[in-house]
Amino acid sequence: MKLWQKEGVVTDDQIERFTVGRDREMDLYLAPFDVLGNIAHATMLQQIGLLNGQELLLLKAQLLAIYGEIEAGEFEIEEGVEDVHSQVELLLTRQLGDIGKKIHAGRSRNDQVLVDMKLFTRNRLWAVTEATRRVFDQLVARSEMHKADLLPGYTHLQIAMPSSFGLWFGAYAEGLADDMLTLQTAYRFANRNPLGSGAGYGSSFPLNRTLTTELLGFEGMHVNVVYAQMSRGKTEQIALNALASVAATLSRMAMDICLYNSQNFGFLTLPDALTTGSSIMPHKKNPDVAELLRAKTNRLKALPMEVTLVMSNLPSGYHRDMQLLKEVLMPAFDELLDCLNITAFMLENLEVKPNLLDSERYDLLFSVERVNELVLQGVPFREAYQAVGKEIAEHTYTAPRQLNHTHEGSIGNLMNDRIVQHMDEAMAGFGNDRVTEALNSLLSPMTGEEESV
Amino acid sequence: MKLWQKEGVVTDDQIERFTVGRDREMDLYLAPFDVLGNIAHATMLQQIGLLNGQELLLLKAQLLAIYGEIEAGEFEIEEGVEDVHSQVELLLTRQLGDIGKKIHAGRSRNDQVLVDMKLFTRNRLWAVTEATRRVFDQLVARSEMHKADLLPGYTHLQIAMPSSFGLWFGAYAEGLADDMLTLQTAYRFANRNPLGSGAGYGSSFPLNRTLTTELLGFEGMHVNVVYAQMSRGKTEQIALNALASVAATLSRMAMDICLYNSQNFGFLTLPDALTTGSSIMPHKKNPDVAELLRAKTNRLKALPMEVTLVMSNLPSGYHRDMQLLKEVLMPAFDELLDCLNITAFMLENLEVKPNLLDSERYDLLFSVERVNELVLQGVPFREAYQAVGKEIAEHTYTAPRQLNHTHEGSIGNLMNDRIVQHMDEAMAGFGNDRVTEALNSLLSPMTGEEESV
Amino acid sequence: MKLWQKEGVVTDDQIERFTVGRDREMDLYLAPFDVLGNIAHATMLQQIGLLNGQELLLLKAQLLAIYGEIEAGEFEIEEGVEDVHSQVELLLTRQLGDIGKKIHAGRSRNDQVLVDMKLFTRNRLWAVTEATRRVFDQLVARSEMHKADLLPGYTHLQIAMPSSFGLWFGAYAEGLADDMLTLQTAYRFANRNPLGSGAGYGSSFPLNRTLTTELLGFEGMHVNVVYAQMSRGKTEQIALNALASVAATLSRMAMDICLYNSQNFGFLTLPDALTTGSSIMPHKKNPDVAELLRAKTNRLKALPMEVTLVMSNLPSGYHRDMQLLKEVLMPAFDELLDCLNITAFMLENLEVKPNLLDSERYDLLFSVERVNELVLQGVPFREAYQAVGKEIAEHTYTAPRQLNHTHEGSIGNLMNDRIVQHMDEAMAGFGNDRVTEALNSLLSPMTGEEESV
Amino acid sequence: MKLWQKEGVVTDDQIERFTVGRDREMDLYLAPFDVLGNIAHATMLQQIGLLNGQELLLLKAQLLAIYGEIEAGEFEIEEGVEDVHSQVELLLTRQLGDIGKKIHAGRSRNDQVLVDMKLFTRNRLWAVTEATRRVFDQLVARSEMHKADLLPGYTHLQIAMPSSFGLWFGAYAEGLADDMLTLQTAYRFANRNPLGSGAGYGSSFPLNRTLTTELLGFEGMHVNVVYAQMSRGKTEQIALNALASVAATLSRMAMDICLYNSQNFGFLTLPDALTTGSSIMPHKKNPDVAELLRAKTNRLKALPMEVTLVMSNLPSGYHRDMQLLKEVLMPAFDELLDCLNITAFMLENLEVKPNLLDSERYDLLFSVERVNELVLQGVPFREAYQAVGKEIAEHTYTAPRQLNHTHEGSIGNLMNDRIVQHMDEAMAGFGNDRVTEALNSLLSPMTGEEESV
Repeated sequence: MKLWQKEGVVTDDQIERFTVGRDREMDLYLAPFDVLGNIAHATMLQQIGLLNGQELLLLKAQLLAIYGEIEAGEFEIEEGVEDVHSQVELLLTRQLGDIGKKIHAGRSRNDQVLVDMKLFTRNRLWAVTEATRRVFDQLVARSEMHKADLLPGYTHLQIAMPSSFGLWFGAYAEGLADDMLTLQTAYRFANRNPLGSGAGYGSSFPLNRTLTTELLGFEGMHVNVVYAQMSRGKTEQIALNALASVAATLSRMAMDICLYNSQNFGFLTLPDALTTGSSIMPHKKNPDVAELLRAKTNRLKALPMEVTLVMSNLPSGYHRDMQLLKEVLMPAFDELLDCLNITAFMLENLEVKPNLLDSERYDLLFSVERVNELVLQGVPFREAYQAVGKEIAEHTYTAPRQLNHTHEGSIGNLMNDRIVQHMDEAMAGFGNDRVTEALNSLLSPMTGEEESV
Repeated sequence: MKLWQKEGVVTDDQIERFTVGRDREMDLYLAPFDVLGNIAHATMLQQIGLLNGQELLLLKAQLLAIYGEIEAGEFEIEEGVEDVHSQVELLLTRQLGDIGKKIHAGRSRNDQVLVDMKLFTRNRLWAVTEATRRVFDQLVARSEMHKADLLPGYTHLQIAMPSSFGLWFGAYAEGLADDMLTLQTAYRFANRNPLGSGAGYGSSFPLNRTLTTELLGFEGMHVNVVYAQMSRGKTEQIALNALASVAATLSRMAMDICLYNSQNFGFLTLPDALTTGSSIMPHKKNPDVAELLRAKTNRLKALPMEVTLVMSNLPSGYHRDMQLLKEVLMPAFDELLDCLNITAFMLENLEVKPNLLDSERYDLLFSVERVNELVLQGVPFREAYQAVGKEIAEHTYTAPRQLNHTHEGSIGNLMNDRIVQHMDEAMAGFGNDRVTEALNSLLSPMTGEEESV
Repeated sequence: MKLWQKEGVVTDDQIERFTVGRDREMDLYLAPFDVLGNIAHATMLQQIGLLNGQELLLLKAQLLAIYGEIEAGEFEIEEGVEDVHSQVELLLTRQLGDIGKKIHAGRSRNDQVLVDMKLFTRNRLWAVTEATRRVFDQLVARSEMHKADLLPGYTHLQIAMPSSFGLWFGAYAEGLADDMLTLQTAYRFANRNPLGSGAGYGSSFPLNRTLTTELLGFEGMHVNVVYAQMSRGKTEQIALNALASVAATLSRMAMDICLYNSQNFGFLTLPDALTTGSSIMPHKKNPDVAELLRAKTNRLKALPMEVTLVMSNLPSGYHRDMQLLKEVLMPAFDELLDCLNITAFMLENLEVKPNLLDSERYDLLFSVERVNELVLQGVPFREAYQAVGKEIAEHTYTAPRQLNHTHEGSIGNLMNDRIVQHMDEAMAGFGNDRVTEALNSLLSPMTGEEESV
Repeated sequence: MKLWQKEGVVTDDQIERFTVGRDREMDLYLAPFDVLGNIAHATMLQQIGLLNGQELLLLKAQLLAIYGEIEAGEFEIEEGVEDVHSQVELLLTRQLGDIGKKIHAGRSRNDQVLVDMKLFTRNRLWAVTEATRRVFDQLVARSEMHKADLLPGYTHLQIAMPSSFGLWFGAYAEGLADDMLTLQTAYRFANRNPLGSGAGYGSSFPLNRTLTTELLGFEGMHVNVVYAQMSRGKTEQIALNALASVAATLSRMAMDICLYNSQNFGFLTLPDALTTGSSIMPHKKNPDVAELLRAKTNRLKALPMEVTLVMSNLPSGYHRDMQLLKEVLMPAFDELLDCLNITAFMLENLEVKPNLLDSERYDLLFSVERVNELVLQGVPFREAYQAVGKEIAEHTYTAPRQLNHTHEGSIGNLMNDRIVQHMDEAMAGFGNDRVTEALNSLLSPMTGEEESV
């Protein structure tokens, strides 16, 4: 590397590296999905007469064998082979000769990548959904556990009104339940079949796109073939927006944790496993995990803009630029899954400080309670507000520490069951069961009988 | 201005300007929705005994009068009054004295802004939806009209395969139908009731949040009061993501139009009303409208990041920072509505050049057709591909201009009806009818009878 | 507006509004600079023989009159006139007939806008520089005033080591001094003459670009005419990056202030003029000004991305998209100037709490001092570190409150004079004096003698 | 990985992975610079009496040995060792026992990372500068070579006026020369010494920061220790802004190349080594390298926002979040260096199509020439403009193909020598020679004599 940096001589190897980039690494993510796409495509080719039953039988058996290798971690993209699609086709041709060469009829690498990316994205979005659900469950459990543990509520970072750990944990639970809406949208957008769009202009073969849509468990298809190609970039954008939404919820919670763990607040304690020391200050227990959670989720929030920048002002039709989006999208799933798992662990282990509001320093938190006492005695709100202001100024104010919040979603009535119901409904809306069923069916070996149909 | 820039002396007036900013201008957008929120809140206060029937009757009559003024364009925020909420309360107090002072019981300006923003955003998202639909209808109509007009299809900006104006227009139609998914998510997120969350920590009054949820036509409520406050920023973010999604579709179409209108492509002509001249080149007809459409929609794509930046790393609880989001969100709706209306106009008036593919320069567009001919004769795909490559190299290739694309979504089978169906379903999913109904009911005058209930 | 929103009918008026947009409003910012550009261009035209001496004399007199009107706030862009350039040319033609029509020879509106934007940006960047200097001076003054007022120093938001208000104020001063580097780069980039590049491809007239470069006080020219046009977008980007750099410094200080003003820290007090109350909590004094400072500066940090998004993937050559950048750049200067002025005011008025470190809660801040005591007694650092850790764990640790920091930039040796020197050098590097001189010269009336030269 | 994704069980290993992340990989970039920082720090400790001459001699010898290992590619961060700083200290302690334990006196890992990052960034920015220079030289050479090859000039993507390849190549050369201004600013910002700031609050040892500043070849120091810590994030931001500036220039050129290489323009041809084929279209030669150059540089433009997002609204003082910035910054240098090298290669090999403007389709490019003919005959510009417009409309217009552009920066007078001069001056302004000299001196072995001084 040093040599050419000094002299600017570019070798073929460098062009190779520049164009292939991290594609082969990224393509390993796609391998199982590429096989699924191949099985569906081959099945369809047989149905429209471009393969015969025997050819399909052989192809499918071979594809299932490759799938098995992938599952077993034994699949690799060989040196000199450009991508996962070429590798799979190569394996088929090696084993089956001319039959392997027939499978690319009626498709292009463009729609192969498209369908692989859809299947991959759909799969990973569901993994994120499940991991989010685990964090959600933790939050709900902690909310219920601490419904009686009061916490100062702040506005403008100034002490404001009484809150509780029940409210605080529950708030983030509800946040995640709402993030499900954007995850669901991303999932549904990923759940559309682009296969059959070829290089973006369709095919003169009488493809049966409805069949591949069903075989792959898609909810529907991207109908217009030019649009199917346009969905590239859009799928990634919407998925990353959804990840960013979850990330934003985690990021805010992490900021709260860092603050509440500061000695000046002192509301929370992190277990030793989640803190680190300093190289010069012997007394330190730093909340590095919460800080990294904050940083990593904040960084995830920048990723949609990377997609936007790569795609902006590209005319319609495929451009190689889109290939780079793999590197933006794919590791983002791993990153967020890591963050979610660590969050679940942190939530399980952090300790909450009890009886915080007993301290005098939080007396003023109860000023609205005092106003409301007067209102209930018939004083118009604006006058009661003035009166309490006067009490405070003249030091005659006494904090009415007895709380009596009963309405929906308040300290005394968290309604976490309703929030759980929102979450359940949102998850049901993905339709993931149907997807699983379709893929299981696609992956079951053919019998001789099927072939003859 | 010059004076203080030189000497750095800050006056009270400047602090006023700095803190109030464009708030009063922005708050005019909120006025009708603030009245709606007031009516719902007052109705609820009566139901829980904090207002009596007579007081509600008077308040509602007065609020409807204010609503009428707003509709008539006669409402204004008076000099010295901080925001729309204060203005409405001031008008009530001026007319009704102590009764006016009672209406703020059980709420805070924080949840007033929250509910106003929700109602406003819900309303504007629907306006965007309807405007998008009009563009969609144009695109479908042009697609059908030009289904037989062929167009070169490009990949990598290189001529690739035959396409058609039918496909091109239809692709953007389907893009907009898919953008409806994100608009719907934004709408549903805006369609949650935050009222009753007070300053973010609820109230000790026995508020009936279920009642205000119904009165305002909300699909549900943000249950947890701490979360209701956290939805600030999130509502804006999701709405702007949705606008950015529509903007991205328009922006790409605008890029295509600018390119296709270039003499080197020459596929489209814009009407004179949409072109401008040059100050020095007498021959120019520049597609300024398409360029501005591209620029404005590209700029809209940056707005979600503004929200992200303002909100990032703010601990939970209200911060004044959130007020600034009004200036990011509110004008964005106007901007996108402008863009949509101009797009509809442009689509209605642009002219398409016929018979483009008859030119020899596009011969190679048909190379895949030639490959497919061989495949249908039984040659394995990979060998047919090699053979045609050889024909081209040896100049024996003849373009088979007869197209025979029949599969779903291809040149010969656009399936625009399916795309229209997607659009119809997406729009139905908003549930806007129920909202309209609820608001109409809320705005109907009370009779004496109701009051006595 | 409502009508067309319902029916989608676009009027000529709407196209006008869409294309002209806020251009006429933005162009008022450019008016004085447009006149300067006109004088320089006309002077050059006379020098190369396209105007005679008498014509120049008349044109310059008229241009100076227009400049006077602008200064007096009497200039306006008339209804139906597209932009400031047309307005000035119109005024000249109205007064001088054919002579007015001659001034556009050898230029295009493209290079007129370019030169106006350069002059405007250069001017506003200097205004920002001066306003930044005023904040800097405040910070240095407060740093000196509070050099003995200790403050807890945090890492990871955990109490770490002793700091001081002297260090804290001084740190932001040095930050602003460093921001001058980016402001200077932006200034120097704005200080290049694009005039003579025409529509981006130069002119066949024998223009003397060196002359206009000198007349307008530019440091040099954008040589290549195609590049001169390409500088559009780049000038804005670099300027906004510089504003964002200053904004980031202010934003971070604002976050510190909000935090330090929280009751849980209690390090700072804001004067009443900079705080606001709550609509329901009678006890609140919220730091709204600091919060808005934070939000506004955070928003400014998003603006470079707007320019990036509008410009990305536009091929070379002018596009109308660039016009939209005016709306991004121009108000940003006002916004930042506002923020700087408010910051200066806030710094002048905030109060610092003395003797903070006397409290026991900050004992552990001094643990490194204890380690260093041992090191000075000859214990290797790593062993001393272990020993003090043990003392803390066994509660034998005593905080050595005596501080003895003497090295460069430490509590006991702030070296603010060195920081002021950095600032002075950075400001001198702009070369603004020479610019002022050139413009004064350009604006002095011609005498008959000059004309005959 | 699969197991915990299903069950959400987090192991210590996962926490390790989450906190250490890619740090050990990133830290390898820092290794040589960490040694430099160690040598400077140790030299200073001896000068202030915390090490004796013999100890320094041993430490330096050992550090030079480690430096040699790094150069030879033999250095690694051992399993279980957290970062490069710990690894170097471990090696010293292993070899030198107690002497090794002494070296951490008066510093913290925080200022170690800071100084390593500064040295690394300074070094890489210079590598980018040199690689940019190579591309610049190519561009200037091609500009000179093709000064007579005309090219259609576009505005609004409409044919406008004559341009040339000389202008086009030269424009990008000048763009890169201007990008040097931002690179220089970033370099100068990286060229400040933060060492001695400890954990961000200095040290009670009498450190000599002026000495380490000189030893490491820094132009100056970050004076205030709190600010030195604050420079974290800022250094990265400014460096990435500079990379983004170069990237934007490359990205635009790549877009031009993709467009000019399209058959509809046909201005440029790429060599086979830089094009790829299609999996289904046998005729394709796609400009993948130019597209990937565009995409990669566009992505680089997003990176400053990642830093902004991670840093926004963090209070002053170190946070672990900053560690994540390594992953944003470090690979960005490699990525841009790759892009620059490929660009140089592409520029060397692309072919330009001659005689483009002879075609009739470009007749209107010469309309301004015709206007100027009339102006030179004495017709006022505005009237000449009208007259030529009439000629065009009435088909009496003849293109005056003879060009006569002579002014600075125009087709006939490219002034590339001036642009080269700008580049030379900009590069000289970095002061890199002095840096190289200082580092060479720091890396020369000590003699016994020096030690005794």
